[in-house]
Amino acid sequence: MALIVQKYGGSSVADADKIKNVARRIAATKDAGNEVVVAVSAMGKNTDNLLKLAYELTSHPAERELDLLLSTGEVVSSTLLTMSLEDMGYEAISLTGGQAGIRTDAVYSQARIVGIDPERIVNELDKGKIVIVAGFQGITEGMDITTLGRGGSDTTAVALAASLAAEECQIYTDVDGVYTADPRLVPEARKVDEISYEEMLEMASYGAKVLHPRAVELGELFHIPILVASSFSQNPGTLIHGGGSMELRNKVRGIAHDLDVAKITVVGVPDRPGIAAAIFEPLAKANINVDTIVQNASINNITDLTFTVAKSQLDKAMKVVGTVCQSIGAREYTSDPKMGKVSIIGTGMQNNPGFAARMFTALSDEGINIQLISTSEIRITCIIDEDRVKDAVQALHRAFELEKEE
Amino acid sequence: MALIVQKYGGSSVADADKIKNVARRIAATKDAGNEVVVAVSAMGKNTDNLLKLAYELTSHPAERELDLLLSTGEVVSSTLLTMSLEDMGYEAISLTGGQAGIRTDAVYSQARIVGIDPERIVNELDKGKIVIVAGFQGITEGMDITTLGRGGSDTTAVALAASLAAEECQIYTDVDGVYTADPRLVPEARKVDEISYEEMLEMASYGAKVLHPRAVELGELFHIPILVASSFSQNPGTLIHGGGSMELRNKVRGIAHDLDVAKITVVGVPDRPGIAAAIFEPLAKANINVDTIVQNASINNITDLTFTVAKSQLDKAMKVVGTVCQSIGAREYTSDPKMGKVSIIGTGMQNNPGFAARMFTALSDEGINIQLISTSEIRITCIIDEDRVKDAVQALHRAFELEKEE
Repeated sequence: MALIVQKYGGSSVADADKIKNVARRIAATKDAGNEVVVAVSAMGKNTDNLLKLAYELTSHPAERELDLLLSTGEVVSSTLLTMSLEDMGYEAISLTGGQAGIRTDAVYSQARIVGIDPERIVNELDKGKIVIVAGFQGITEGMDITTLGRGGSDTTAVALAASLAAEECQIYTDVDGVYTADPRLVPEARKVDEISYEEMLEMASYGAKVLHPRAVELGELFHIPILVASSFSQNPGTLIHGGGSMELRNKVRGIAHDLDVAKITVVGVPDRPGIAAAIFEPLAKANINVDTIVQNASINNITDLTFTVAKSQLDKAMKVVGTVCQSIGAREYTSDPKMGKVSIIGTGMQNNPGFAARMFTALSDEGINIQLISTSEIRITCIIDEDRVKDAVQALHRAFELEKEE
Repeated sequence: MALIVQKYGGSSVADADKIKNVARRIAATKDAGNEVVVAVSAMGKNTDNLLKLAYELTSHPAERELDLLLSTGEVVSSTLLTMSLEDMGYEAISLTGGQAGIRTDAVYSQARIVGIDPERIVNELDKGKIVIVAGFQGITEGMDITTLGRGGSDTTAVALAASLAAEECQIYTDVDGVYTADPRLVPEARKVDEISYEEMLEMASYGAKVLHPRAVELGELFHIPILVASSFSQNPGTLIHGGGSMELRNKVRGIAHDLDVAKITVVGVPDRPGIAAAIFEPLAKANINVDTIVQNASINNITDLTFTVAKSQLDKAMKVVGTVCQSIGAREYTSDPKMGKVSIIGTGMQNNPGFAARMFTALSDEGINIQLISTSEIRITCIIDEDRVKDAVQALHRAFELEKEE
């Protein structure tokens, strides 16, 4: 008898009919002879409605209170899903994050799981029950309720799978799986059957919204195979795992893109030790997330620094940079809010310069100007004009023949 | 510095504006130099909406799941109320029933409080915070969430007041206090400034819906003065307490009535030991709540038994009675679904037969036929035709001059 952990997202439980549909899928998994633990998100618009109520009362809700408020959304969906299973004749029980033993730190709104005490879940499984756990939440040592922030319910599911030594963690969502590129941009994009944690991590971090990177990291750390599939179909989905043969493949697996990119350049920076810290520490303190950073080679001890931030943080970032520029004696600083990012992702590419060359050629053939380049072991990213991102993704998809079956 | 426990009902926190109004009232209590703990009900229609969702999924939701589902309603209102207080510059914290240490048995949907561990509340009060507790709920030894059933949030408030040795428990609701009779029936009904626990208990049990008897009993047991007042006005309300001079008063304090009464008569019952048990045990087993019971004097060892039940339970009760009648050899059984109940309530009346006489005369003068009479130490109740209840309440209010100031 295998233990399967499943996760269903908010759109999968948005109303009574959808909850019944999810209950039938869970029941089928149980009927196939498995033990089943499920993490569930809040129903469709529930979280938004609660937030709206909060902001009618205050423009600055305390995070502790907001977490406790929002945590009710997943409790509602998990009890309803449990009732639906019981109505179908299955024994089931819903548990809050706290009841499920999901212990977190006390960083409200983006708590980290510090451990899971699985006794209660194990007891309920031993009684033959299906266990439905409210996703996205945990409990501190002081018995306060926290939420896990973005990707929270995915993280709940993978963490449960790890602590229960589950056979597989299945993430059911509103997409079929992981594609070679965003199908809205590339009609011939192809769903991949499997992908490595590392590749998925780069896909997820670089704009593929299927699964949150936190959940992928956790899966990698605890060797939990993660299946991503649609809760509305029986299509097989994409299996994310640590398969050892991955590195030998030497192939681009997918194209990621991101349209939420703004670029800031600090020109004429005196190149001395500590200069990067002088710029990026104030940005970090202002809670601005800096992405790609490129520093040009220094000429006469003067250099340029370019980096990207999310568009919504550009104004705030520019204010910080303005102050810093004065203090470090930089010549000037400029910004461009209309940038985008395309990445090719695949294990093994660090050993093969041919990938970079083929990427740059493909973009050049389309007349697309590359403004910044950054690389990791399994990824090459180019920052380009926002309005060329679609062309770039399509060109790269063709150049690496991703429409072909592997 | 006094410790005050307040309770606000669902209609008092039905929307953002009402929550702000409640926050201002709490703040004023704090500003007056008190420590404040608040129990709050779910927002207006929230509980109904959750129930509707549940019944879309199953006609028989498991009580454990239903309790966990419904408990979210009070968590939502308590976090929102806390946010509103914080927005006004007050330090506040919301606690679930479990966090507040409200321990209950595991009888879902009508759990009883077995104890309160007030450490967390005391800690928060010591930090200068206003503590907002989700009403209506508690936690079992096994960490499962329960709800307290009817009158739950009132019970939460009085139990908190008892465990914290509060100076007073203030129940804020949508009425001004306890009236000498239902103002909808008797326009000249007068709000009483104070009333004893016992009198209030009879008023509450016998149809005055202001405060649940459970909460009154708890207040009496732990000597907690309970103020019942409107959350929408500054009127002083009614103070329920154990004042020692009460018994000397010898005065009718109020008229209670109940329209939800059906009568069953078992005719020609052989009068032998155990015959009452033979009738009422099967009714209790069928979960039918029997109210007033009257047994006529026996003639030739044959007697009649009459009792009342709620109208909604009449059909079920008649089936049980039909079976029992055969087995005990009763002649026949009849029912009347259209009955009502009026009561006069006041301490000291057991020593003064004048009250009963005055009551019967007042009803007789109105041409109202009394079908059954039952009495307690501080109450006389007459069962009459449903459509004469209004006339009866008005006549009794006049007869005992309740419109006059005390």
